Amino acid sequence: MSARSIDAERLLARLVRLGEVGRDDDGRLIRLAASDADKMARDLVSSWMEEAGLDIIVDRIGNVFGKWSVGDADAAPIMLGSHIDTVVNAGIYDGPYGILAALEVVTALRPVRHDLKRPIIVGAFTNEEGARYAPDMMGSLVYAGGLDLDRALATIGTDGTVLGEELARIGYAGTAAPGFVTPHAYIELHIEQGPVLESEGIAIGSVENLQGISWQKVKIEGTANHAGTTPIALRRDAGHAAARVITFLRDLMDSNSPGGVATVGSIAFEPDIINVVPGRATFTVDLRDPVESRLRDHERALAAFLDDLASQGFAVTVETLTRFEPVIFDQGLCALIDEAARERGLSVRRMTSGAGHDAQMMARICPSAMIFIPSRDGISHNPREHSDPDQIAAGADVLLDVVAKLATQ
Amino acid sequence: MSARSIDAERLLARLVRLGEVGRDDDGRLIRLAASDADKMARDLVSSWMEEAGLDIIVDRIGNVFGKWSVGDADAAPIMLGSHIDTVVNAGIYDGPYGILAALEVVTALRPVRHDLKRPIIVGAFTNEEGARYAPDMMGSLVYAGGLDLDRALATIGTDGTVLGEELARIGYAGTAAPGFVTPHAYIELHIEQGPVLESEGIAIGSVENLQGISWQKVKIEGTANHAGTTPIALRRDAGHAAARVITFLRDLMDSNSPGGVATVGSIAFEPDIINVVPGRATFTVDLRDPVESRLRDHERALAAFLDDLASQGFAVTVETLTRFEPVIFDQGLCALIDEAARERGLSVRRMTSGAGHDAQMMARICPSAMIFIPSRDGISHNPREHSDPDQIAAGADVLLDVVAKLATQ
Repeated sequence: MSARSIDAERLLARLVRLGEVGRDDDGRLIRLAASDADKMARDLVSSWMEEAGLDIIVDRIGNVFGKWSVGDADAAPIMLGSHIDTVVNAGIYDGPYGILAALEVVTALRPVRHDLKRPIIVGAFTNEEGARYAPDMMGSLVYAGGLDLDRALATIGTDGTVLGEELARIGYAGTAAPGFVTPHAYIELHIEQGPVLESEGIAIGSVENLQGISWQKVKIEGTANHAGTTPIALRRDAGHAAARVITFLRDLMDSNSPGGVATVGSIAFEPDIINVVPGRATFTVDLRDPVESRLRDHERALAAFLDDLASQGFAVTVETLTRFEPVIFDQGLCALIDEAARERGLSVRRMTSGAGHDAQMMARICPSAMIFIPSRDGISHNPREHSDPDQIAAGADVLLDVVAKLATQ
Repeated sequence: MSARSIDAERLLARLVRLGEVGRDDDGRLIRLAASDADKMARDLVSSWMEEAGLDIIVDRIGNVFGKWSVGDADAAPIMLGSHIDTVVNAGIYDGPYGILAALEVVTALRPVRHDLKRPIIVGAFTNEEGARYAPDMMGSLVYAGGLDLDRALATIGTDGTVLGEELARIGYAGTAAPGFVTPHAYIELHIEQGPVLESEGIAIGSVENLQGISWQKVKIEGTANHAGTTPIALRRDAGHAAARVITFLRDLMDSNSPGGVATVGSIAFEPDIINVVPGRATFTVDLRDPVESRLRDHERALAAFLDDLASQGFAVTVETLTRFEPVIFDQGLCALIDEAARERGLSVRRMTSGAGHDAQMMARICPSAMIFIPSRDGISHNPREHSDPDQIAAGADVLLDVVAKLATQ
């Protein structure tokens, strides 16, 4: 097959166009799963899938697939995908890039369709971010059989909504059974969302593994009391206890974990009033490490610290929200990515994904891997998220070549 | 004048009755200033004032006064007072005790009205707690001329409301000019809200001074970023910076301030999502000390710590919400309180108020003092706030005697 390229201009224009869907009055991009904004984005992406000649299939957890019935109808398809839901105040690349680039791959392959031996499916998975419904990566997790469908549909969101009801409301409660087809391979193209590729001047990341993720919700209860009259020594200040956990986690990561990260991203004090000692502090802990034994060490260290707080008179409750072991991606696919990049004259390195992705769920049921491109300043989940147009085009071209190799084998 | 006593049963019953006004569905007492619940409480207290034979005067900041025109009409009145607004999830004694006991004092003095030389006014000041509108003690501060009326009325609440509009809505935007009369003396009876009297087994606190109060709002801005992909060393985690401030303040108080207290009672992270490093943390700091020079030391230490954070790449903004110097109460009134307690056979000690009270504002315009009774376990701003019935009666009897002495002199 001769070298060809994707239509970079259309890809970039669609990224910008899709990035306009879900802006609030302040211009912030907020496209939470199964929201009105998500519906508009799904409608738009579905129309582009149809324009690319794909047949739309929506499954019961709301994953949207565009299927190109090319090659041997009985052959397992190659699946490409990612997500279009976002965090609050997001950038425009995280998720949409993998889907819109996959549509360009399909279009670029249409002239050589007679050489292709397998169907190609482009998937947009429901609720990857988990910003409205926990756990994140829910659509791909259900698809891969890791979470019961009915339980997932019954999930209550941060705004009190029920996911299943919201999917029905926006018209994306489909009929296909999640997991209706087991792919030959799953490949996800994504921005790195970290600083590694940019800092090393490398164009393509061949992602061979993915950090394990542990999400916990911690509630510390002390005693609410008057801020002026309670001597420091007599306080059971839940807010101060929470602050100690936050600084403890930072010190833990500084001292013993080159690859691990810990984040307290969300917090609330009760009663949350200036002149009342906090009686309760509730916060989230996000621990990640590419090595399972180390991730367990972090969890144990946190548990020991919380036990120590309990022995000081605080009531501590811990809820596990999400727990995924580190994932090893398919070495054969990584080798194909390496090869495709080198043939394009692009620098490439093997790397670990720090973020969770739908690919980690799909890895449960089929050979999977990811392709990363650089993120400026490593910034993501932020309006300043950016990758250069030539980097965006390069990643999509590598995806094109990998799919061409896989589909013609 | 012969010894007489207040009607303790009615006082206790009214405390409980008023404590039922402003309960939410979970039974929590929430009677924020100028809210619907506050209106109901104002209506109830006004009806009790009228029942006690007082004429109602409402001033433009919504302070409600019940005036007993006894004695020489031209003599400066004795004012007794406190507040009926509450924090969120409050107890029933903080504020109402001083007002309802004052009504019992008026009723108990009625038989000897011909001996009284001065009018007596019972006042309920607007927005003492500051839980909805800052600063706290607003009604008495405006009354004492320490805050411009129009500026106070324009205050935006935590819920976006405007105080002046809310006062008009609930029917308590009065017509009297704040400060319409300068009292001969102001005396406020209150629960201690701290552990001193109970721990020492003393019945009455003769409050001779009051801690200085410094309220600040601190905003720390770092960089929001993906929690999985940003190495710890490259983060500017505003949440972690806020946690460091909280632990710093605790260490500061532990190490060098026997009388001072520091509290971070309210906090918010943005975007406040589990898998995003906080880009912004906003929190309040409540610093108190009975000695002005020490309070300034605490403020300077905090400022230095925040400067250090700024030098580490954070943008730090500090807003002063409230700043009151320590207050010295009137020694003559304290001596009267001491004497009245001893004549009743009650133990008494001079003490410092850790909380802010309307009395500190009234001290700007007239001789003022406070009477404290014990708080069980020192707990306040909490549903478990409690004082025993005999303690409540004893405090009111001391107030009765002090007023009788003052009004007959």
